[in-house]
Amino acid sequence: MKYSIIKILPLFLGGFLFAQTQQDSLQFKNISDEVLVNGTAYENLWDLTQNIGQRLSGSAAYEKATDWAVLKLKEAGADKVWKEEVMVPVWERGKESLQIKEGNGNWKSLKMLSLGNSEGTNGKDVEAEIILVKTKAEFDQLTPAQVKGKIVFFNYAFNQKFIMTGMAYGDASIYRRASASWAGKKGAKAVIIRSLSSAFDDVPHTGMMRYDEDDHAKIPAVAIGPKSADALEKTLKTQKVTAKLNSNATMKGEKLSYTVIGEITGNKDQSVIVVSGHLDSWDVGEGAQDDGAGIVQSIEVLRTFKKLGIKNNHTIRVVCFANEENGVKGGNQYAENIKKNNEKHLFAIESDGGGYTPRGFGLVMNAEKRAQIQSWKNLFSPYGLHNFDIQYAGTDIEPMETLSVPLASLIPDSQRYFDIHHSEEDTFDKVNRRELLLGAAAMGQLIYMIDKNW
Amino acid sequence: MKYSIIKILPLFLGGFLFAQTQQDSLQFKNISDEVLVNGTAYENLWDLTQNIGQRLSGSAAYEKATDWAVLKLKEAGADKVWKEEVMVPVWERGKESLQIKEGNGNWKSLKMLSLGNSEGTNGKDVEAEIILVKTKAEFDQLTPAQVKGKIVFFNYAFNQKFIMTGMAYGDASIYRRASASWAGKKGAKAVIIRSLSSAFDDVPHTGMMRYDEDDHAKIPAVAIGPKSADALEKTLKTQKVTAKLNSNATMKGEKLSYTVIGEITGNKDQSVIVVSGHLDSWDVGEGAQDDGAGIVQSIEVLRTFKKLGIKNNHTIRVVCFANEENGVKGGNQYAENIKKNNEKHLFAIESDGGGYTPRGFGLVMNAEKRAQIQSWKNLFSPYGLHNFDIQYAGTDIEPMETLSVPLASLIPDSQRYFDIHHSEEDTFDKVNRRELLLGAAAMGQLIYMIDKNW
Repeated sequence: MKYSIIKILPLFLGGFLFAQTQQDSLQFKNISDEVLVNGTAYENLWDLTQNIGQRLSGSAAYEKATDWAVLKLKEAGADKVWKEEVMVPVWERGKESLQIKEGNGNWKSLKMLSLGNSEGTNGKDVEAEIILVKTKAEFDQLTPAQVKGKIVFFNYAFNQKFIMTGMAYGDASIYRRASASWAGKKGAKAVIIRSLSSAFDDVPHTGMMRYDEDDHAKIPAVAIGPKSADALEKTLKTQKVTAKLNSNATMKGEKLSYTVIGEITGNKDQSVIVVSGHLDSWDVGEGAQDDGAGIVQSIEVLRTFKKLGIKNNHTIRVVCFANEENGVKGGNQYAENIKKNNEKHLFAIESDGGGYTPRGFGLVMNAEKRAQIQSWKNLFSPYGLHNFDIQYAGTDIEPMETLSVPLASLIPDSQRYFDIHHSEEDTFDKVNRRELLLGAAAMGQLIYMIDKNW
Repeated sequence: MKYSIIKILPLFLGGFLFAQTQQDSLQFKNISDEVLVNGTAYENLWDLTQNIGQRLSGSAAYEKATDWAVLKLKEAGADKVWKEEVMVPVWERGKESLQIKEGNGNWKSLKMLSLGNSEGTNGKDVEAEIILVKTKAEFDQLTPAQVKGKIVFFNYAFNQKFIMTGMAYGDASIYRRASASWAGKKGAKAVIIRSLSSAFDDVPHTGMMRYDEDDHAKIPAVAIGPKSADALEKTLKTQKVTAKLNSNATMKGEKLSYTVIGEITGNKDQSVIVVSGHLDSWDVGEGAQDDGAGIVQSIEVLRTFKKLGIKNNHTIRVVCFANEENGVKGGNQYAENIKKNNEKHLFAIESDGGGYTPRGFGLVMNAEKRAQIQSWKNLFSPYGLHNFDIQYAGTDIEPMETLSVPLASLIPDSQRYFDIHHSEEDTFDKVNRRELLLGAAAMGQLIYMIDKNW
């Protein structure tokens, strides 16, 4: 590509100048310029991921991250910063390993990760034959006698045909969430699942599973990478494979933790507009895209409002939720608290799809409010946002839906997220500065409009 | 982000099923599915970048790449494959270095790259004081006496405020292209430019410069990375800095080379639809995004048509242009040849903005044809393409504009391209499989519509 691309310049400026309203479009540009030129989100994310790193809810690193968030919210210019108490589960992975043996061959180690909240083997080797199923329907065909004493391998692949990868993730997620309970009830010793990954590498991805209330077996659940899954399936078609699993993963009760909150007070009233992400991450990688990105973007919105001196009518509140990954206790507690305190919330948005180029907003609200936001599409168009049709809000803010709070999510480009999500690969170097900042700018622009019009 | 994102599934399918015409939307899905599931573009790009790598026009590596392209076009199922002769310039970089010295301090090496087509110092050290200018306007204020014998440092920064980075690139490109001639005419010994980079690292980016016809000085032009540029400017504000440049870069005449072409013959007529990229790259990095991506995407379109058995009315031709980077001789020759041979061209598209998530198409054609393509927007919408308003075609196909051939370009997301463009960082690991394939699918879908309707 060469400099002839300069031809598009007049067209773009033309589109911009004729935008919906002159004043709003100028403020959109002010916000975008401020974020792109002076934004600190990328540097903050570097600091969070390099100086704290992974920060599983309930861990010492998470507590360090809450102090970090308090500091960064103050630096960004919040009028008030506080920590909100919440009880969170304490799950620990510990040492873990998975070996397989073909027929009478030698043991071979596979890269693996226990699924979050899974129980382990109490540090003892659990050895059993692996049986393969591709789908739940296939598993349902098996009798308890066929499953008993075996390790069930659910090899359900991420469907590459979906354009938005979140749909493929949603499609496959039941296997991560529920397969241990399915197999446990038929007497299996453990389950191995194919990672919920859009990549073709051998990186295992963790993520939350849960046992059914009537599931007393609580067998271990682990994930392997796509390459190992393909190879294992291939082998199982021609010969018997034995697995030896050893895991110290276990749930260790609950502990007091914190959601971190900072706000700039409204000039007209104290009704609240929430911009949010979750501060916890899995205990692998650096939690850079999931969801360090959403945290630093939310703080960036507050910083930009202060820096530009935008006189916000309503209170703009950054919420850094605790425990999204393995319990959503932070989100549930927050919704309970605002109900208890009778605190009026005008709107809440979450960024939890990674700091990739923003493509639009998910909108979960009544038809009238949705239509109003959709009527602002032309203002967002010069910033590349075009998709306002998805009905999805973030996991942490969804508990506010029952309180009739209009909810939204930042919808970033989804192509790379599930290559690295919940894995060792979710590291700072996967984040692009401009992509991250554009997401912050888009949330700032939407909040500017809502603050002004609602 | 958790599995609750599955909520968006019904909405998406709904949007899809009500798309413009059932038949076209089904064919769009066939093309997308085939590319995403069976596409070979990513593996082909791995092969091109790892087994050949950088392939400057006129180099031995480029000639190897032409054989590679012939093979890949045959593998993809082309009915006819050939090489088209074209004379290309032979520019060689050779050994090069840039050192600076603050006041009476020690020499310090800076990372640098000579600009493409620049002359060097014949391997001799050229030592001179550096003078800083930020803009052309500032340079124009300087008298020849002030410039004579100096090395001029043009530190014009990439403007982060543009949303589409191609505009910032276009804005800054004059400094790369022309500053050596400006400075040479006032008696400077060399120019140093700040790299045309959206990043904040210290990676130098090369790219084509040219001397004016009346510029007999032909002084060397080199680029340094953004960090070095910032540091150098800071130093120059307080003290004198001397530079020592040594470069063997030189133009070594012309040589016979080849554009590689493969096609599937039209079933109704032989009028041609071109899908293209450029096979050459700069002599640094691996030419992965620029423009290995465009080459493998174009081949993928042909493969997909063959694999799906789409009966194309017109001839669909993949053109792998020679010498985009430092001469556009391949593109000019191609346009000359079709004029000479009176070969009817219905349409040409180029992918040369990197293999990132596709966002739309640039359209350079009459208003009627443009409106027709824009009327297909709803078909593209489920695939994330939304921008049909840019008037830009690729550098290699632009010479066909004078022949009134309707032209287009694939417009991918632009945020990461200029971080790595024309630099050592343009390597295979910067390419995401799904992003690359989605670009190929989008071009295939557009070509399906044009083949059917034009």
